[in-house]
Amino acid sequence: MQHEIEVEIRYYETDGQGIVHHANYFKYFELARVKMLESVGLDYAELERQGILLVVHSISCRYLLPARFGDTLRIVTRIDRATAARLDHSYLVYCGDLLLAEGKSTIAHIDASGEVQRMPECLLNH
Amino acid sequence: MQHEIEVEIRYYETDGQGIVHHANYFKYFELARVKMLESVGLDYAELERQGILLVVHSISCRYLLPARFGDTLRIVTRIDRATAARLDHSYLVYCGDLLLAEGKSTIAHIDASGEVQRMPECLLNH
Amino acid sequence: MQHEIEVEIRYYETDGQGIVHHANYFKYFELARVKMLESVGLDYAELERQGILLVVHSISCRYLLPARFGDTLRIVTRIDRATAARLDHSYLVYCGDLLLAEGKSTIAHIDASGEVQRMPECLLNH
Amino acid sequence: MQHEIEVEIRYYETDGQGIVHHANYFKYFELARVKMLESVGLDYAELERQGILLVVHSISCRYLLPARFGDTLRIVTRIDRATAARLDHSYLVYCGDLLLAEGKSTIAHIDASGEVQRMPECLLNH
Repeated sequence: MQHEIEVEIRYYETDGQGIVHHANYFKYFELARVKMLESVGLDYAELERQGILLVVHSISCRYLLPARFGDTLRIVTRIDRATAARLDHSYLVYCGDLLLAEGKSTIAHIDASGEVQRMPECLLNH
Repeated sequence: MQHEIEVEIRYYETDGQGIVHHANYFKYFELARVKMLESVGLDYAELERQGILLVVHSISCRYLLPARFGDTLRIVTRIDRATAARLDHSYLVYCGDLLLAEGKSTIAHIDASGEVQRMPECLLNH
Repeated sequence: MQHEIEVEIRYYETDGQGIVHHANYFKYFELARVKMLESVGLDYAELERQGILLVVHSISCRYLLPARFGDTLRIVTRIDRATAARLDHSYLVYCGDLLLAEGKSTIAHIDASGEVQRMPECLLNH
Repeated sequence: MQHEIEVEIRYYETDGQGIVHHANYFKYFELARVKMLESVGLDYAELERQGILLVVHSISCRYLLPARFGDTLRIVTRIDRATAARLDHSYLVYCGDLLLAEGKSTIAHIDASGEVQRMPECLLNH
């Protein structure tokens, strides 16, 4: 399973070095996950209303080249592993053909009280 | 009633022009209001747990001089008007003796369902 | 001159009340201005490389109804006044037919040293 | 070398789940690094003016327990490795005695043109 989105960099996402602040990549990854769910008919807002809360258990990013305002990023997201306990995603961030960054994350499913739950079937099979 | 806080600019608050992004002043104003409540013994986290939600009804800022990473801002907050329906604050943002920006806001009190409520006494008298 | 964009709310733009944090509307307004420039063939990244820096002189927003994750906002931006010294924009933020918020801003043109400059013709006539 | 800061959670740092958004931990880590430099007499704003730009090469975080508005975090930062090419930091984020999160990062030194440079002595020995 692989999904791709385009993200145009917003001005406020750059920092004093004139490049996208490194913490913003994690916001792009979140957007990529939400859009990947959407692409298989799952609406994360609706999942939350049903009490299915997804939380990030761990996340990382390696930065190879900077991104600047005016760039359009292409983010390729893949599910590397899906078990009852967690979903592992990986992310490749491109500008044109250049790989700017690569990331990984592990997501868990909790209920409203914060208890870890079995990953819902709808999420395992997307 | 007047209250003063110091805010050290964080690197990620600057943008591609090397100055604090204008939207961040509204985050400083929020911090200033929370700290002003704290100064009279009110804990906003605790207020929210009691169902007292404060929302911004309107807010504005005028920018005179830019702020940069490394600057420490001094924010002077005043309550200009307190009625059963709303609280009006004004903010002066200084770096040293220089006035960098000035803002105004109107805050209302809603309950969990979003209905506007009478401002609690504890907020009217601070 | 009027221009319209759609903005899908990103999860991280919501706050502890489950609604879009009020400071984020100013980021949407910035995006709306950049996209309005784009619609008339002006690339803000390119303008900055030419030394044309636009800065916010003043900005305000009035909030009528909350926006939530899952909502798609429609932002209608208009230039109310364009003079050699400044551009005045106004913004209407809709979700469906509901007006959620309305804003206003005044933008000035500075050079790299921070001096206010005459607004470039290309910006006056868009 | 170890350094500790306290960070009070700001309201806008929480998200729709009522907890601190995971991307914000990377902003706390940045603040922790800047304050660690300050503790040995180094001013990052001044370093940048001298053309010493520090960039994040890679960064990660593992989340154990959520943080909420009203919490004060204690962040313990350590330099794990300092070589001519890079600085490795690790971070422990506590609320009271509870470990909420732990992170790691690798920082490199570039010049204004983006070329990786030898880490300055002042940074190697702090």
